[in-house]
Amino acid sequence: MEQLVTSDFKLGIIAGGQLGKMLALAASRWDVKTYILDSDDHCPASTVCTRFVEGDYRDFEKVYEFGQQVDMVTFEIENVNVEALRKLKQEGKRIYPDPEVLAMIQDKGVQKQFYLEHGIPSPAFVLCDGREQVIKSIGEGVQFPFVQKARKAGYDGKGVVVVRGEGDLGKLLDVPCVVERAVDIDKELAVIVTRNGRGEMACFSAVEMVFNPEANLVELLVSPAEIDADVQDRAIELARQVTEKSGIQGVLAVELFLDTDGELWVNEAAPRPHNSGHHTIESAITSQYEQHLRAIFNFPLGSTDLKRPAVMMNLLGDREHEGPVRYEGLTESMAIPGVKVHIYGKKETRPFRKMGHVTIVSPTTDEAKKHAVRVRDLLKVKS
Amino acid sequence: MEQLVTSDFKLGIIAGGQLGKMLALAASRWDVKTYILDSDDHCPASTVCTRFVEGDYRDFEKVYEFGQQVDMVTFEIENVNVEALRKLKQEGKRIYPDPEVLAMIQDKGVQKQFYLEHGIPSPAFVLCDGREQVIKSIGEGVQFPFVQKARKAGYDGKGVVVVRGEGDLGKLLDVPCVVERAVDIDKELAVIVTRNGRGEMACFSAVEMVFNPEANLVELLVSPAEIDADVQDRAIELARQVTEKSGIQGVLAVELFLDTDGELWVNEAAPRPHNSGHHTIESAITSQYEQHLRAIFNFPLGSTDLKRPAVMMNLLGDREHEGPVRYEGLTESMAIPGVKVHIYGKKETRPFRKMGHVTIVSPTTDEAKKHAVRVRDLLKVKS
Repeated sequence: MEQLVTSDFKLGIIAGGQLGKMLALAASRWDVKTYILDSDDHCPASTVCTRFVEGDYRDFEKVYEFGQQVDMVTFEIENVNVEALRKLKQEGKRIYPDPEVLAMIQDKGVQKQFYLEHGIPSPAFVLCDGREQVIKSIGEGVQFPFVQKARKAGYDGKGVVVVRGEGDLGKLLDVPCVVERAVDIDKELAVIVTRNGRGEMACFSAVEMVFNPEANLVELLVSPAEIDADVQDRAIELARQVTEKSGIQGVLAVELFLDTDGELWVNEAAPRPHNSGHHTIESAITSQYEQHLRAIFNFPLGSTDLKRPAVMMNLLGDREHEGPVRYEGLTESMAIPGVKVHIYGKKETRPFRKMGHVTIVSPTTDEAKKHAVRVRDLLKVKS
Repeated sequence: MEQLVTSDFKLGIIAGGQLGKMLALAASRWDVKTYILDSDDHCPASTVCTRFVEGDYRDFEKVYEFGQQVDMVTFEIENVNVEALRKLKQEGKRIYPDPEVLAMIQDKGVQKQFYLEHGIPSPAFVLCDGREQVIKSIGEGVQFPFVQKARKAGYDGKGVVVVRGEGDLGKLLDVPCVVERAVDIDKELAVIVTRNGRGEMACFSAVEMVFNPEANLVELLVSPAEIDADVQDRAIELARQVTEKSGIQGVLAVELFLDTDGELWVNEAAPRPHNSGHHTIESAITSQYEQHLRAIFNFPLGSTDLKRPAVMMNLLGDREHEGPVRYEGLTESMAIPGVKVHIYGKKETRPFRKMGHVTIVSPTTDEAKKHAVRVRDLLKVKS
C-alpha cells in the first residue's frame, strides 16, 4: 500500500474551521501533510496545517487549483464548489467523500428525495421556489406547524424557519426551499457512521443533542444518549441504512428526531466530521477525525467503543458581545474533574459564534451533566 | 488571570522532538502560540508549532535569543544550555521548570547527591572523574556488578554501561561519571508526577517498563503496572517525595527499580514529559502534555484517572536499516482493536531510533498485551 505517512503525500482539506483544525491535528499524529483551503488566513486550521492556501471554497477556480496541488481532497463543510470537485475527480484526483454524495446532501431538496426513494423515514415535505409558493401551499400539502429550510447554504441554524401559525409567516425566507411537517420532538439524536472504500462500516453510539432554543444551536450533547436500548438500536440501524445507500467513503453524521410517539425520523445528514462527534476525541477509542482519515485512506476502521460517558458543550459567543475575544472562567472550569477545553482560535467573537467546546468525561453520565452545568455557569466568551 | 489562549502569548519550547511535537499539539487545543527551538528544521515539532526557530539548544546565544522572543520557556530535553536559562530568568523571563531543577537533574552526580541529602532511596554510588578512577575504586567502594553513568548528556540508553565483571571493563566510558551499585531488578517502574506553582501535585499510576536489552530502550510499557497495590502506593509516595523536594513546576518523570526483595529505589528523574507517559494521551483523563501545560500555566491540575488500561510500544528503527524511512504493516496493525498509531515524522530511520509509538487501549491489560504482541510482529520501520 502507498505510504501516506512521512512522505510527500498531501491531503487537501477544504475549509479551515474547527473541524478542519481537528482533522489536521489527527493527521499530524500520523505525520500526514495537510493543505487547507480557506478565505480566512486566520482560520482555526491555519495554525496546525502543513500549508495554508487562501481562497474561497465556493469558487470554481480556487477549488480546482487547490485540488491540483494535493494528492487527495476531503472537506469539512458542505458549501463547496461541487463542479470543481467533479472536474478534479474526472481528471483522476481522489476526492472523498465523492462529489456526488456532497451534491446530494448540499441540496436539501435532493437530500429529502433521496430519503423518499430509499424508504428512509424522514418528515413529509414539499419543495417550493420561494416565499409565495410556500404561502400558496398552506392547506394544500402544507399544514401548520411546519419547518421551512433553504435548499442550499444553510448551516448552524441559519436558513431554517419554524412556522407555528400565520403569525410566523413574516419570517419566511424567499428562497428555493423544503417545507417539512414539524415533528413533535421528544429528543434530537445524532449517529455518526463511517464507511471505508471496502464498504466496511462503524458506528458511534447515538448521542442526544440539547438545543439552545434562541440560537437553534446545540448547547449540550450527551453521549451515550439517555434512551432505551431499542431506540439506540433503531437509530443506529437507520443511520447505517442512510450511510450504505449513500455509498459514502468517509464520515456521515446523521441527525434524527425521536418523536413523542417513540418513532424515529431522519432530519438531515452531513458528509463530514460533525459537531455532534467532538466528544469522541476523549470518550471513544477512535475519534471521528481519525475515523474519517481511516475511511478516506481506506484503512480498517477503528473501534468506536466508548471509554467513558461524556457531555459536550459548545462554547458560544455571548449574545451581548462582538469583537476581539476574551475568555472568562477558564481557570475555574479547569478545576472541575474531567473538563477538556478546546479553544478553536477564532480571533473575533460574535453572538452565538462557535468559539470552542468543552467535553466533560466522567464515570457516569449524571456526573458529567452535573459538571457541565457548572462549566456553563463559569465559562463565558466575551469581548 | 492573564489570557494565554487566542492571544499574543508565546510559549517557547526548547527542542522539537516527539515530546515537543506532542506538547505543541496539546497547546494548539487551547490555541496557545508555540515557538520551537531546534537545530533540525525537519524535527517532528516543526510541522505543528506556530513558529520554528533554528538553533542549537546547547548554545548560550541561541537559547538566550530564543528566550527573548517568547513570553515563557519550557523544554522537552535535559541537554539545554542552563546558563542561558539562568540569565533569562534573572531578567524576569518565566522559565518552567526552573533552571535550577534542570541543572540538578542534568548532572547525574548532583542528582544522586540530591537523593542522598533528602533521604530518598537510590542505589549507593561514588563519583569518578573518568575510566581510570573507576578501575581504581573497584574493591574500594565499588563492587561488581555495577553501572557506570556519564554525569552529563546521556539519553536513550547512551552514556550507560553495565559492568558485570572484569571482562566488561573495556566498555567503560572515560568521562566524569556516577558509579552505582547494580540493583537486582525485578521490574522497572515509572511514575509521572506534576506540580503546579501553588504546590498542588497530581500523579499518574505507576507504569512498568519492559526494556529491549540490546538497545537499552523501553520496548513495551504496561499501564497500570502489574504490581501489588502496596508497591503501587509506595512508588507513588516516593515519586511525590522527589517531586516535592525538587520544587519543580511542571512534569517530573521518576524512574524506579523494584528489586527482587520488593524494595523500591529511585533510578533517575526527568523534568519534562517522558516516554513512559505517552499512553496518557489515550488512556488517562488528562495527558502528561496537557498536565505539563496546566502546571507551567499554573492552572489547576487535571484528573489522572485512567479511562482504560494501556500498553505502549516504541516504534524503533530496525537494526539493519538506515536511511529514508518506510513503514511496513501499518494497515494490518490498524485492524487490531484499540491500536493508536503515532508517527513522529522523522525522515530518516537508524537502528533503534524512536520513530513513533503505538498505544493499545483495551478493556483489560491482558488483552492490550496480546494485541501489542501482534503489533510488534506486524509493524516494522525499515528504509
